[in-house]
Amino acid sequence: MSETFTLDPRLAADTRLLASLPLCDVRLMDDARYGWLVLVPRRDGLVEIADLGEGEQATLWREVNRAGAALRATMPCDKLNLGALGNIVRQLHVHVVARREGDAGWPGPVWGHGQREPCAEGALHERMAALRQALAAPG
Amino acid sequence: MSETFTLDPRLAADTRLLASLPLCDVRLMDDARYGWLVLVPRRDGLVEIADLGEGEQATLWREVNRAGAALRATMPCDKLNLGALGNIVRQLHVHVVARREGDAGWPGPVWGHGQREPCAEGALHERMAALRQALAAPG
Repeated sequence: MSETFTLDPRLAADTRLLASLPLCDVRLMDDARYGWLVLVPRRDGLVEIADLGEGEQATLWREVNRAGAALRATMPCDKLNLGALGNIVRQLHVHVVARREGDAGWPGPVWGHGQREPCAEGALHERMAALRQALAAPG
Repeated sequence: MSETFTLDPRLAADTRLLASLPLCDVRLMDDARYGWLVLVPRRDGLVEIADLGEGEQATLWREVNRAGAALRATMPCDKLNLGALGNIVRQLHVHVVARREGDAGWPGPVWGHGQREPCAEGALHERMAALRQALAAPG
């Protein structure tokens, strides 16, 4: 894609780039409490999922599935949580979160619950390496 | 679909049936605070979106778009919120919520925020009639 793309500065501050899939950048929320991925289609001006064409939406959901599978492959997960809110950051982005029973926000949503707890640098790099490998795996 | 389907009793208690689309029942959350739809694929045993086949997932997202369009057509909406959590009710269901700036939970998520406020009976029926008409509209 050659269209312009500028990542919202709040997303840039809270997340790290893991992989660029055909439509979306997959970014890791730097939060020790949860395995939390954010998918951001690389195009400016998108707000709602319906702003994507039908084929692009299919790609988005395929990439969301791939993100969920990577979380499941690399950390304990009792339930995946999926969300597209955008009430604060309007740039279209989709959250995919690995939840464990008894985690910091369980059984509530991760959004609007408590404060982000940045990972220790070593743990962050370990998590990023594992997720990058899982995201690169076929299928 | 001739497969068995039993709606979770908590979803049954909080929502009213609006329409049966090819895959999902579309139900209105009886909550005066938000325009809030819940889509439930009519098949037992589904927990994660990935439990649906690829074609069924495409149908699910098409029906989610249709639900979002029906909300936009019938009430004020500054942002659609989409969520699939299932931490409490495990039966697969997708939330589609019309948010307004300054609504009861703004800008936080609707999930886990405050108590449901059932609609007055007249307002509920008016909302259901408008949404049914919008859901039945082509396109």
